[in-house]
Amino acid sequence: MAIKYELIKVCKQSGARLGKIHTPHGVIETPIFMPVGTQATVKAMTPEELKKIEAQIILSNTYHLYLRPGHKLVEKAGGLHKFMNWDKPILTDSGGFQVFSLGDLRKISEEGVEFRSHIDGSKHFLSPEKAIEIENSLGADIIMAFDECAPYPADRQYVKNSLERTTRWLKRCIDAHKYPERQALFGIIQGGMYKDLRHQSLNEILSFDLPGYAVGGLSVGEPKDLMYEVLEYTTPLMPKDKPRYLMGVGSPDCLIEGVIRGIDMFDCVHPTRIGRNGTAMTSIGRVVIKNAKYAEDFMPLDPNCDCYTCKSYSRAYIRHLFKAGEILASRLVTYHNLHFLLNLMKEIRQAIMEDRLLDYRREFFQKYGYTL
Amino acid sequence: MAIKYELIKVCKQSGARLGKIHTPHGVIETPIFMPVGTQATVKAMTPEELKKIEAQIILSNTYHLYLRPGHKLVEKAGGLHKFMNWDKPILTDSGGFQVFSLGDLRKISEEGVEFRSHIDGSKHFLSPEKAIEIENSLGADIIMAFDECAPYPADRQYVKNSLERTTRWLKRCIDAHKYPERQALFGIIQGGMYKDLRHQSLNEILSFDLPGYAVGGLSVGEPKDLMYEVLEYTTPLMPKDKPRYLMGVGSPDCLIEGVIRGIDMFDCVHPTRIGRNGTAMTSIGRVVIKNAKYAEDFMPLDPNCDCYTCKSYSRAYIRHLFKAGEILASRLVTYHNLHFLLNLMKEIRQAIMEDRLLDYRREFFQKYGYTL
Repeated sequence: MAIKYELIKVCKQSGARLGKIHTPHGVIETPIFMPVGTQATVKAMTPEELKKIEAQIILSNTYHLYLRPGHKLVEKAGGLHKFMNWDKPILTDSGGFQVFSLGDLRKISEEGVEFRSHIDGSKHFLSPEKAIEIENSLGADIIMAFDECAPYPADRQYVKNSLERTTRWLKRCIDAHKYPERQALFGIIQGGMYKDLRHQSLNEILSFDLPGYAVGGLSVGEPKDLMYEVLEYTTPLMPKDKPRYLMGVGSPDCLIEGVIRGIDMFDCVHPTRIGRNGTAMTSIGRVVIKNAKYAEDFMPLDPNCDCYTCKSYSRAYIRHLFKAGEILASRLVTYHNLHFLLNLMKEIRQAIMEDRLLDYRREFFQKYGYTL
Repeated sequence: MAIKYELIKVCKQSGARLGKIHTPHGVIETPIFMPVGTQATVKAMTPEELKKIEAQIILSNTYHLYLRPGHKLVEKAGGLHKFMNWDKPILTDSGGFQVFSLGDLRKISEEGVEFRSHIDGSKHFLSPEKAIEIENSLGADIIMAFDECAPYPADRQYVKNSLERTTRWLKRCIDAHKYPERQALFGIIQGGMYKDLRHQSLNEILSFDLPGYAVGGLSVGEPKDLMYEVLEYTTPLMPKDKPRYLMGVGSPDCLIEGVIRGIDMFDCVHPTRIGRNGTAMTSIGRVVIKNAKYAEDFMPLDPNCDCYTCKSYSRAYIRHLFKAGEILASRLVTYHNLHFLLNLMKEIRQAIMEDRLLDYRREFFQKYGYTL
């Protein structure tokens, strides 16, 4: 298999897992947050900056890279790692979530999804086989199966049909996958917010022996408590010797709650997106830096942070950069937000090591002002 | 005096000057190009990146910083160096050139210039006293006098009036300047393309004992040969023990020609502006990276360059970033272009040291494909 999960220990207080994923591009310490580099770049960051804040793996998007610059071009460049100058692990999604999100621009059938490009309106077709072909060209260490993610809310029958199609499509993904020895294909468990359907999906997806599994169909608009509930009856049934990936989740509280419920991997555009728009995640809550109250505030973005941004610049300066439309504005807050989340994951790993993750959660919510 | 110019040697072949300017924030090796940080940031770059490519001094704009965030705010922040996290020398212009460029939005009188903000249309007044007050608040190592820069073409009488007003305004700048011991005020020689008026301005401006002098009113649309001609009858009359600054010039050929004609300092937005828009200055001429021919070109931007961008990324990747509208695109080409010009200045200094600047010029134009 392309990757291997090594369970280091289970937190005696919370049941959370500390582990390592060995990949062709190095070892990932879990639990981990994966910054998103949609178009073969984590927006506003260089690979060197990502390494400086200890990013261990990044995610990139099959849908976007297929449309632009095209997976064949990336393959000619020597694969995504070489193309974007990132020599650590990469995970690619399958494009499924993006094409389903296109609404009127797509048509789903058993064969796959016909859709129109958001860039130029051109017509395309994505299927399990095509998605895997693209992911094989891109060459990420971990590749995701082409699945159907049901929206929230969705009725039982719709969700049941989706999860069963996801299983049939997984079979086709496995058959299409050309490089299982160097790219680990993850299956995705669906089933929406229905316990019995989650269990049906678990049974079906886990019947394929894959190097890892993801929980899909969460963080799609449901209340957080409902997401936690689904995780509580899903993760205990997932294999202990494989990594578990909760897709599309990246707010600090959800990361902690997800880890406590047995998740090893997370990704989300949230920290980079809000950062680019001037919102910082800090130890005293969100700082919306364009607010007038920061105009003459010469404190760092986060007084308890030791990242490059916080060591070097004041809120007043960063606010000025945003008001003036300067590129450095997006750079500095993106850097800080990713550092904040990666540092949070590091603290979580430390707390698991010391069997005190529940204490850490309590301290975190007290100190940081985030509420459940 | 706030700064001191040290003449190291004169090139036996070309007459170009090699020197050092000692400033409150360190030594500048001349001839030098100054990257422009209009709004207290060199667009798309961090101070650390500027240091990595060996930027020694940057320029910032009084007009822009006065309007936003306001010079009083910068002063409260501890001055421009601290505000923007740049501890090396800074030069500020006076805002004169910017307000004159506002066209219908400004009204000139002997007292100064009334103008409307390009940001919100609010009404303001800039005079020699006000410009110096702002520059004193910003705290740059070198500050420019508030002058009137005549356009090209302009009739003799207009140019004569401008240069005489510039002299009267210089007197007022000197009187208003609060910190001559830590900020070096430079006078600006005007006179357009008229030899006798240049000489009149030289006589008038040099009658004030200042730490440095600039040649203004060039690179305003005149042919390059005309600019060189003006320099040829201007710089020989400038003091040998003071730095000479040619304002607003930054194309490779003009830098070489300017140095040969006795100039020590240059600035221009050109390399950063064209970089942000996808044009690279390279050893094989300009590379317009969005062009289709680079789509599958896996060479570096400049095959003869060893900067970060060229060591790490292909033309195909950088083109993809521009097509996708990614921030990293602007970062990478800005970085390369500034490296290119700063490296050019370094080679020029080396050539002066070795008394072979005319040979260097010939080799440069042969090798790099730039023509006069």
